[in-house]
Amino acid sequence: MAKQEYLMGLLSKPITSLDDLFVHTLQDIYYAEQQITKALPKMIDKASDPQLKQGFQSHLAETKNQIKRLEQVFQMHGAEMKAVKCPAIDGILDEAQEILGDAKDAEVIDAAALASAQAVEHYEIARYGTLIAWARQLGRNDCAGVLEQSLEEEKAADRKLTEIAEARVNRVAV
Amino acid sequence: MAKQEYLMGLLSKPITSLDDLFVHTLQDIYYAEQQITKALPKMIDKASDPQLKQGFQSHLAETKNQIKRLEQVFQMHGAEMKAVKCPAIDGILDEAQEILGDAKDAEVIDAAALASAQAVEHYEIARYGTLIAWARQLGRNDCAGVLEQSLEEEKAADRKLTEIAEARVNRVAV
Repeated sequence: MAKQEYLMGLLSKPITSLDDLFVHTLQDIYYAEQQITKALPKMIDKASDPQLKQGFQSHLAETKNQIKRLEQVFQMHGAEMKAVKCPAIDGILDEAQEILGDAKDAEVIDAAALASAQAVEHYEIARYGTLIAWARQLGRNDCAGVLEQSLEEEKAADRKLTEIAEARVNRVAV
Repeated sequence: MAKQEYLMGLLSKPITSLDDLFVHTLQDIYYAEQQITKALPKMIDKASDPQLKQGFQSHLAETKNQIKRLEQVFQMHGAEMKAVKCPAIDGILDEAQEILGDAKDAEVIDAAALASAQAVEHYEIARYGTLIAWARQLGRNDCAGVLEQSLEEEKAADRKLTEIAEARVNRVAV
């Protein structure tokens, strides 16, 4: 990301209320989901395990839909629809690239891609969980309802990745 | 973190096998846990909610114990006990500081600290889950057993934080 964008995006508004926190975190996850849609095609490309490849493909479609849901929540809440730089997802994705970058062996690449995807899922699970709690605290059960759909998808995606990881362990152990 | 340490730490060894991935990720979470022990005292200091303060305090003690467990796993596996820079945890903690830095209101600070702590927990849950799967794949059930104790603690810490978050929602809703 260009330095200018960074300066433009990051905490352009001071956080003084729970509403500010809610909107900032919406803008943070809006950025994160966009970065994930850029990262996933590279992971689809690198993965060899057909189940893993397919899992990434369906999660890419889900992520695009989650972006639409965030846009819906911005509109419902009358908040500025913009992405603010999220150092957490950048760090998680940088780490994924470092690990994937060096590996040559298909098994190692799949293991690294799977681990990186689970770190991404858990980041999203944490953030959507927080956003839902704050939406309820702010009396925005309507926003909470929309965000819950994304949280359930993220949890299901993580469970699917865990199943793939466990199948890999058992395959080696047999 | 100083630039020199960064250059020294980050991927000092190319990752070519599952064993390399396992050791790299151990070194990554070893760094992450150390950063968390530095961040938690600031969060204890800033938090007002007694339950949250106490939750951070007991998690600080747990984190120190988790560092000891990682040292045990390094020894069991004959791997180099060192911390490698983990951009993911740095990003998560940077984000926490940004949000906490601006806030003045105790309720907002507590909400931000709680959210940041849950993002940290979820990162750790993802990484310990991955390490356990890889330990089993490598035939190191002994290492997996030690790491499982930390995973269970992280999951319990996250559940505790969720309970505190839900109590806050209900308090406002009543």
